[in-house]
Amino acid sequence: MLKDEDIKYIAKAIPFWSELNEEDKRFLLDHIFPVQYEKGNSIHSGSMDCIGVLLIRTGDIRVYILSDEGKEVTLYRMSDGDICILSASCILDNITFDVYMDAESDCDLLVIESKFYKQLCSHNIYAENFTQKMVIDRFSDVMWAMEQILFMSFDKRLAIFLSDESARTGSDVIELTHEQIAKYVGSAREVVSRMLKYFQEEGIVALSRGGVKIVNKKKLKALIK
Amino acid sequence: MLKDEDIKYIAKAIPFWSELNEEDKRFLLDHIFPVQYEKGNSIHSGSMDCIGVLLIRTGDIRVYILSDEGKEVTLYRMSDGDICILSASCILDNITFDVYMDAESDCDLLVIESKFYKQLCSHNIYAENFTQKMVIDRFSDVMWAMEQILFMSFDKRLAIFLSDESARTGSDVIELTHEQIAKYVGSAREVVSRMLKYFQEEGIVALSRGGVKIVNKKKLKALIK
Repeated sequence: MLKDEDIKYIAKAIPFWSELNEEDKRFLLDHIFPVQYEKGNSIHSGSMDCIGVLLIRTGDIRVYILSDEGKEVTLYRMSDGDICILSASCILDNITFDVYMDAESDCDLLVIESKFYKQLCSHNIYAENFTQKMVIDRFSDVMWAMEQILFMSFDKRLAIFLSDESARTGSDVIELTHEQIAKYVGSAREVVSRMLKYFQEEGIVALSRGGVKIVNKKKLKALIK
Repeated sequence: MLKDEDIKYIAKAIPFWSELNEEDKRFLLDHIFPVQYEKGNSIHSGSMDCIGVLLIRTGDIRVYILSDEGKEVTLYRMSDGDICILSASCILDNITFDVYMDAESDCDLLVIESKFYKQLCSHNIYAENFTQKMVIDRFSDVMWAMEQILFMSFDKRLAIFLSDESARTGSDVIELTHEQIAKYVGSAREVVSRMLKYFQEEGIVALSRGGVKIVNKKKLKALIK
């Protein structure tokens, strides 16, 4: 059951809310429900599910593709205030690919069920239009990731990742294993370990069991330029 | 100047034509012009130009990204009857990446100038809606290419390329250099040459100065499965 504060949040979060008539607003509210995920949970698994459009009240979600052999490539991340549409990709006829989504922190979401969201889009062109715009935003994110992976030298990519993680968590210590870092940057563990060892030798980071500590930010930034 | 047959073609090619009023139809026709490109010409170069929406009457266009070091990765191809929208990406606020386009055969196009197409989209939601749908179609194409490049073993990728080229040209002989094949499959020339040599040793292809001849289709297909 939605609380008053949920309804207020929804009216603010959905940009086409003012384009809906009272009936459509009621219809939408009848098919939104709150849901929580714990850090590490899978939220969406390729074509296996199509839970719906996610309004992220709080939390961080990583969106990635997965090969048959289990290789992951991160496409982009979403967080507080973002709206996630590819978790409802089954309702978009022209989306023919599958993505995966994991909760990277505890997540508090509102979910609009796919089936009903599709109904709304089919008779309200503003809803459809907004949905398409969100997908195209993600297209730009994916192209950015693709250029990083295909074109950028690996030392630069790893340096950017460490720098971004440090900024995101507000800490100089990246508490991730080499295996996890490899997954996030779309590489192999051995490649990451080798490059981190090189960074350590260069006095850029210090490696420990707990993770990677950035010890010379200036040198790290120099790699990114 | 447009001929009667051009106008007939446009009315059929543009799916939202019937949603336009007479004034908009006139406006659109006033800003469409025919243009020809020869095989090998560059049609669109990243952020350098933004010629407009292309209606491909006849011809083949390759769309790719290009690194600072000159590495190319093919995203998708377009041909007769396709409408090319990323050549007008400057009018789409949420497209933040640049692509390149080359004519792979002689091309006969109709071009809707970007500036006027944007004007049309800004006051006609059906035009905007259709434009977004086209972009999302390309998003799916790009995801497919990305999965090929990042996840697929290289022998399989090369086999698929040779098989597709053979089907497209209707010939068992692929008249391309190893350098060109490398560009198309997003790899290095040395890698392509090594794999083609392996294919030759396996009796799948025969190599000559003129290109690559497929001599055992069954074996080639077996690599793709």
